[in-house]
Amino acid sequence: MHHLLGLEDLSGEQISQLLDQAEQFVGVGREAPRRTDLAGKVVANLFYEPSTRTKISFSLAARRLGADILDFSPSGSSTAKGESFIDTARNIEAMGIDAVVVRHASAGAPHLLTKHLLPHVRVINAGDGAHEHPTQGLLDIFTIRRARGTIAGLTVALVGDIAHSRVARSNIHGLVKLGAKVIVCGPTTLVPREVESLGVELAHNLNDVLPRCDVINLLRVQFERQRTGLFPSVREYAHLFGMNGERMKRAKPGMVILAPGPINRGVELTQDVADGPNSVILDQVTNGLAVRMAVLSAVCGQPI
Amino acid sequence: MHHLLGLEDLSGEQISQLLDQAEQFVGVGREAPRRTDLAGKVVANLFYEPSTRTKISFSLAARRLGADILDFSPSGSSTAKGESFIDTARNIEAMGIDAVVVRHASAGAPHLLTKHLLPHVRVINAGDGAHEHPTQGLLDIFTIRRARGTIAGLTVALVGDIAHSRVARSNIHGLVKLGAKVIVCGPTTLVPREVESLGVELAHNLNDVLPRCDVINLLRVQFERQRTGLFPSVREYAHLFGMNGERMKRAKPGMVILAPGPINRGVELTQDVADGPNSVILDQVTNGLAVRMAVLSAVCGQPI
Amino acid sequence: MHHLLGLEDLSGEQISQLLDQAEQFVGVGREAPRRTDLAGKVVANLFYEPSTRTKISFSLAARRLGADILDFSPSGSSTAKGESFIDTARNIEAMGIDAVVVRHASAGAPHLLTKHLLPHVRVINAGDGAHEHPTQGLLDIFTIRRARGTIAGLTVALVGDIAHSRVARSNIHGLVKLGAKVIVCGPTTLVPREVESLGVELAHNLNDVLPRCDVINLLRVQFERQRTGLFPSVREYAHLFGMNGERMKRAKPGMVILAPGPINRGVELTQDVADGPNSVILDQVTNGLAVRMAVLSAVCGQPI
Repeated sequence: MHHLLGLEDLSGEQISQLLDQAEQFVGVGREAPRRTDLAGKVVANLFYEPSTRTKISFSLAARRLGADILDFSPSGSSTAKGESFIDTARNIEAMGIDAVVVRHASAGAPHLLTKHLLPHVRVINAGDGAHEHPTQGLLDIFTIRRARGTIAGLTVALVGDIAHSRVARSNIHGLVKLGAKVIVCGPTTLVPREVESLGVELAHNLNDVLPRCDVINLLRVQFERQRTGLFPSVREYAHLFGMNGERMKRAKPGMVILAPGPINRGVELTQDVADGPNSVILDQVTNGLAVRMAVLSAVCGQPI
Repeated sequence: MHHLLGLEDLSGEQISQLLDQAEQFVGVGREAPRRTDLAGKVVANLFYEPSTRTKISFSLAARRLGADILDFSPSGSSTAKGESFIDTARNIEAMGIDAVVVRHASAGAPHLLTKHLLPHVRVINAGDGAHEHPTQGLLDIFTIRRARGTIAGLTVALVGDIAHSRVARSNIHGLVKLGAKVIVCGPTTLVPREVESLGVELAHNLNDVLPRCDVINLLRVQFERQRTGLFPSVREYAHLFGMNGERMKRAKPGMVILAPGPINRGVELTQDVADGPNSVILDQVTNGLAVRMAVLSAVCGQPI
Repeated sequence: MHHLLGLEDLSGEQISQLLDQAEQFVGVGREAPRRTDLAGKVVANLFYEPSTRTKISFSLAARRLGADILDFSPSGSSTAKGESFIDTARNIEAMGIDAVVVRHASAGAPHLLTKHLLPHVRVINAGDGAHEHPTQGLLDIFTIRRARGTIAGLTVALVGDIAHSRVARSNIHGLVKLGAKVIVCGPTTLVPREVESLGVELAHNLNDVLPRCDVINLLRVQFERQRTGLFPSVREYAHLFGMNGERMKRAKPGMVILAPGPINRGVELTQDVADGPNSVILDQVTNGLAVRMAVLSAVCGQPI
């Protein structure tokens, strides 16, 4: 695999191979001496939007494979000096970096990089606007597969702000390719009609949908990204689309609950649900490491 | 030792063992190839208050023992997204981190972490509110022990803002346990009566106390933490409680002078005293590395 | 070599030796296992002005030689607490650091450090006010030497803001010592008469000068540093001193074009020139790594 720009670009088989590789990496990479899979490789984090966990997850994954990782994320420095995105990337390339992990507010920014960098520099999308966040999608799907043994045939609901969510988009592409039935559920303002074209079912009433779900993924309400006015109030949102103990009674036993962090407790889900037996929220974080090791390995090491 | 939350929790014997271990680490850890004491371990810095030297000292100490160290300190990112302290810590745990070095404005925050993290994740307090800063306490005591050969029987004065100082509190607990006589000396507004219960003597006139002291530790005036009105003026403070060449004449020959940095020259002490023969201020920094290696080793490696 | 404060302090022979050493380091340092030239050494980045590329370039160079590198750059932390530049440096020294890479807004700051630190702590100037930026000078000269085979006898024009440019100053010292003819060319407000004393020719009309040049180095217009009023307008500047396709027609064939980044496209040079066959702008970045490896090796390893 040359780059990882989005799950839309991958076949179901490619996705499955990445998940299989991730399975090999679970709990691995802390041996001494260190693994040498990517020894001598240098990975650059280039985050134009704030991130703690994704950036650190990539850092840990890279180190576990023996690569060096450096943070090029603009701190107002070169950006303040007026340097363009492409010039920054070309400078990274000129320093001999092997792969760039990029997060950017503009959809398509990672794809743009691949047009301007030499072919030996690999690009991994760590979130581009409302487009895709493929490693989050992969780790969500990986976590579901580990919890349920398979993806094909499962019914998975994505709940919340579908319109602005790159996580939703990556989940949809990956899940559909692997044979899941995907329902997107949220307020009409946040669930645009056009997503139906991706092969998903639209719903606006979580209570109706819940009894059919094997898995629900509670998207984060992005208070910092949201334009005002898209839903009446946080309280209303929590009432209609938040998971809580009461609503859990309508769910199938063993329904798996995911939520890409950081979660807003009491909004997307209540504390008891987040910490309850159905939640795999922290497994997602743990699995994220293995998935990112698999992606780095596929992109920087031997081609899959 | 499972965690290091404060010197109040340790016995004199445990403290002495840490100091003995630190003695083994003085000047050690720069060999090539690198030591492997903590190879494969990952330590997370989680600083909610700014720090340069403590954070870097822990980083260097961890690396000298062969551990990896990652900075999770919130840069407004996840915090801006509304994530709670505990959720952040649990995410760190889920990434497979072995130890968290935490600094927080709230007293008790490190203790809270130990309640919410799995038992294999170790917690080291790098300063919590006005409660404790145990590694600073240890490095102060270690520096005194190296300068004077022992702690028992010494008279040590802590000078300045006792009320708001976690450094003072850790020093008091450690010094008293090791058999030192401790005097706390400062303006009445900054030396609360209650500290007497910790087994120390209260004083408000440094000139009176000075002739009895083997060691004085000049606490930093925390301009950034201080509420106004606790002392009349910086000039008045320096006049009454600052060390200067004139006041040194009242001191025993060989009296050891400590000051946890960063120092305000001309306030807690004058330039000539800071750079004079009695000052061990830079030894404190050097010794901090050995002490933090000992703490990391005790907490993450073999239990003491 | 003990420190690297500026190219003014070096002989032509010393500069040539550094360039020869850099030649050995081109493309080197990504082997596994890692090189051990500087194993066990710790280098501190201490940047009081923002920087991405210089800081990262030093980081990569240090790691490629097996050294550890730590970032002490003030983030408002100790600086906010009122610590002085010298106290910060002494603390770094007390932590056992071997070399400090320092950038500071004040000319002479690195030199000041050498007066206050123990002699075994090496200082590398990464830019001090409008004084020098010696590693940038070296990498510019190294890039010219690689492109043209030699420096002696070449005519090199430095174009733009000579008055405020530490890059210009380092280039002038190095180029003159190695036998180049140097022309400085810019608006009269930005090209002070006094630079003539450095052995360079003054010019104010780029079109007149261009046919004589083997190399031109287009200095960055430092919008963030510039006091207003030094040149009429950006458009006027670009018209008179910017390189573009039209102006290229007056240049010798094969004239080499340098520009220390980050570049302002359309100001110092147009996109087509920046990306054209005469440009070695990205070579400068690549060569910067080799040059900084040579400098670190000379300063921290065996003396040249």
